[in-house]
Amino acid sequence: MARRSDHNREELYALAMQAARDIAVHDGLKGLTARNIAKRIGYSAGTLYNLFKNLDEIALHVNAGTLDQLHDRLGEVALSGKPKKDIRQLLDAYLDFIGGNDRLWSLLFDHKLPDGTPLPDWYRARIARVLSLLEAALAPLFPEPDHPECQLSARVLWSSLHGICQLANADKLEIVSDEDTRALAHALVENYLAGLKARLG
Amino acid sequence: MARRSDHNREELYALAMQAARDIAVHDGLKGLTARNIAKRIGYSAGTLYNLFKNLDEIALHVNAGTLDQLHDRLGEVALSGKPKKDIRQLLDAYLDFIGGNDRLWSLLFDHKLPDGTPLPDWYRARIARVLSLLEAALAPLFPEPDHPECQLSARVLWSSLHGICQLANADKLEIVSDEDTRALAHALVENYLAGLKARLG
Repeated sequence: MARRSDHNREELYALAMQAARDIAVHDGLKGLTARNIAKRIGYSAGTLYNLFKNLDEIALHVNAGTLDQLHDRLGEVALSGKPKKDIRQLLDAYLDFIGGNDRLWSLLFDHKLPDGTPLPDWYRARIARVLSLLEAALAPLFPEPDHPECQLSARVLWSSLHGICQLANADKLEIVSDEDTRALAHALVENYLAGLKARLG
Repeated sequence: MARRSDHNREELYALAMQAARDIAVHDGLKGLTARNIAKRIGYSAGTLYNLFKNLDEIALHVNAGTLDQLHDRLGEVALSGKPKKDIRQLLDAYLDFIGGNDRLWSLLFDHKLPDGTPLPDWYRARIARVLSLLEAALAPLFPEPDHPECQLSARVLWSSLHGICQLANADKLEIVSDEDTRALAHALVENYLAGLKARLG
């Protein structure tokens, strides 16, 4: 039976988010239903909808938490000012992170808002915060700070790595081992950076 | 009511595949159920399971058809022997194809076999056939034919493009227009190829 009044709004929110995250870790997007979350915390689905507008909002909050974790993990890399070295270190930290959080990482990209619904600004800010770490590592390659190709390159690398890891995960590239995924990711970074250097240097 | 004996096995197969494809085009992976396909062709779901082992097999066949279409579209690009020019042309053909077939293209990557189930060889051959077009375009950059980095680079570009298009589609890169997607894709190709050239040349 659903509990009532055992928790205040903040406590309930924290409980629901933790439950949503646990479900995402175990079952991915398909397990993430209001019913499952409610059941896990012993409240009704109706109570959840007092806290969240809809399931998309819950998924966005789970994803924001994953982006924050990834940001903190990548933020531990001390930048040396040598882009090749720094990007390689960020890449390895990224691969380690998604290796240990594969379902959460998948949810980050599998969850899509309905067509025409823009991502909320607070969520975009979380993505921008992760991308800014890549931009900082790439910056020494460019003649001036805020060079437009620096932002562009951070986005190219971020989305390309996503594609490599996703296809390798689903074994859609005739690839089986983690080593092969790393080889593709390293080839991406090595050639992309060598290209930037050759073009701009 | 379900029909019986109106079609022979081959005809039924063709009907079911066309129905599955139509459903994928309109509703994507979530609409692709045995019930929906059966309903569309006026047969029972049981009849479908005489033709196909399971729904995954149907999705694989739809995806194989998409890979064949993509292969044919990319195959129309006449290679000049200049990798930068040729890869740019293949890239534009790829972007045009997915622009006109976005749901089929999504299904290609959204559909995953259960954990531990390998892709069948006939399906891998379809992926390899598309990748071979990229390899042919890249080949002049390498000192010898069958250079291992040529295969690797075809896979890097294929999966990176997938990532760029997927994140841009879901608007997960603070990007809105098709122009921005093209800008990322072009930056990927331009820098990657310049890097290969600088490293190997």
